[in-house]
Amino acid sequence: MATIQEVAKKAGVSVATVSRVLNNSHTVKETTRFKVEQAIGALNYAPSVLGRNLRNSESRLLLVLIPSISNPFYTEIINGIEDTAIHEGYNIMLCETDSNPQREAIYFNLVRNRMADGIILMDPTINRNNVLQLAETHPIVQCSEFDKEGHISYVSINNELAAYQAVKHLIKIGKRKIAFINSDEKFLYARERKAGYEKAFNEYDMSVEAKWMYNIQKLNFESGQQAMRTLLNQADRPDAVFAVSDVLAIGALKEIHASGLNVPNDIAVIGFDKISFSNMTYPTLTTVSQPMYRMGCISATMIIKKIRGEKVESMLLEHELIIREST
Amino acid sequence: MATIQEVAKKAGVSVATVSRVLNNSHTVKETTRFKVEQAIGALNYAPSVLGRNLRNSESRLLLVLIPSISNPFYTEIINGIEDTAIHEGYNIMLCETDSNPQREAIYFNLVRNRMADGIILMDPTINRNNVLQLAETHPIVQCSEFDKEGHISYVSINNELAAYQAVKHLIKIGKRKIAFINSDEKFLYARERKAGYEKAFNEYDMSVEAKWMYNIQKLNFESGQQAMRTLLNQADRPDAVFAVSDVLAIGALKEIHASGLNVPNDIAVIGFDKISFSNMTYPTLTTVSQPMYRMGCISATMIIKKIRGEKVESMLLEHELIIREST
Repeated sequence: MATIQEVAKKAGVSVATVSRVLNNSHTVKETTRFKVEQAIGALNYAPSVLGRNLRNSESRLLLVLIPSISNPFYTEIINGIEDTAIHEGYNIMLCETDSNPQREAIYFNLVRNRMADGIILMDPTINRNNVLQLAETHPIVQCSEFDKEGHISYVSINNELAAYQAVKHLIKIGKRKIAFINSDEKFLYARERKAGYEKAFNEYDMSVEAKWMYNIQKLNFESGQQAMRTLLNQADRPDAVFAVSDVLAIGALKEIHASGLNVPNDIAVIGFDKISFSNMTYPTLTTVSQPMYRMGCISATMIIKKIRGEKVESMLLEHELIIREST
Repeated sequence: MATIQEVAKKAGVSVATVSRVLNNSHTVKETTRFKVEQAIGALNYAPSVLGRNLRNSESRLLLVLIPSISNPFYTEIINGIEDTAIHEGYNIMLCETDSNPQREAIYFNLVRNRMADGIILMDPTINRNNVLQLAETHPIVQCSEFDKEGHISYVSINNELAAYQAVKHLIKIGKRKIAFINSDEKFLYARERKAGYEKAFNEYDMSVEAKWMYNIQKLNFESGQQAMRTLLNQADRPDAVFAVSDVLAIGALKEIHASGLNVPNDIAVIGFDKISFSNMTYPTLTTVSQPMYRMGCISATMIIKKIRGEKVESMLLEHELIIREST
């Protein structure tokens, strides 16, 4: 196999320059990088990780840990992370945790083993102690979901206020029997949105009824359909539904249609996130817009600052209630 | 900072065992792995990549290169890849290429640098020569999209046959003015599905009209809407549409509704992929079901075999026309 010296000779540059190219350093001119990559290609040179620049232990890789790539909510955040990271000379790698502590531990080890420089975490409570421990020695930021009791920087929105405003909107259009399709309350956003739902009910002296609350197990269309089926089967059926995710709300819409009822006249529906699908449904879905792309950009900026040893501040971004045909 | 010797002592195992845990070796018992991970955690031990087992250059990492994570088509394939990879003791990392050769080159370098063991490629024609060159020395397989002239193993479906059957179904229900919303024809699937469309037309002595062909730039809902708007603005408007992706078909559905026309009576619509959202639309979408999850499982099995030096055969999987309300 070719050596780094042979590559340097063929490219007409120093060994140090070849090393800088291999480490994706920013100090290499594009023309030089091109020459070195041509030489690497021509000689089929494959440096081992052991040959990486000893003085530069940066991998220029960021790990993004997401619970599930199937939710379009995450894909829009990822677009923001990616654009910012690549602009700053970092590559990102997406790791789906499926909320599984063992998988998460594997990815944490990649940072411990210095294969990656930092982690953007979107599901920080899978293994709370491990996260807090890793954060003491390695760069981590939280995006969207965060640990309120911890000390790790985050970017998110005010979930309680957003849910309160969504439910208040339903009350203002005359709805009183408002069902709530929520996620597993192990998630902070689920607990906070529930608090917002209850706050709106209290303000209007309406009583929160257990029969109109439904917690799903898995965040997909089918869970939304299943939740709505259960809610519709009650003698006293709701006249509105607030779902904590557009995916669930879209499943609920489908089930309401299947039962022959009209949206919004019989039952109004509000989702959460403003994923692009939410404007393709019939009728179009009222939802809470989260600045997903911006949240991604900010979390990438935060982790890169942390890697550089700079101080970062947690942030709550603005949300917006988008009123469409379903209410 | 703690040394590997201190970790071994605390865990009551040999240094070699600690090293095996760090390299995710399969020969370590779960109880031993647990003890070592506890010791690593307690001592905040952070091995450098330089400390990896010299005799084991495997990273146990697979890279999955996808053009865009926003398309649900890819997310279902990824679920299959992930389940299989994790079962076989490999982790996967997703890399969005955005069809950008520079980004792709960065990820190829990770394999050249032995940071990852192999690549599952879903967009192999971005930089054809680089792919063919890398495949000579490193494990690569292609999934869904592949290079017909190359020699790299792939798993895909028979796109021409699937498109032919979809268009034939439209002809059989009495449609004659069948528009075709296609992707960029740099993609093999776009060229093959076009061939299938033309084959059905020829079989029924119908003439393929340029005015009913539309090539989109970006695969999203808005492109489907835009394509349909253009097709509807013609004096001689189509009575059916075949779109090469459910995402485009759903955008087309939305635009047809907006113009006050009925699906399927005025215009029938067929998509491609059977993403989960295709059953949430109104009306539900007729589509070609691709075995996305299975395609993912098979591509993961193939790359792992290649990494182990075993021989693998390319495969074409079965597809199925799913007839729903939109036709």
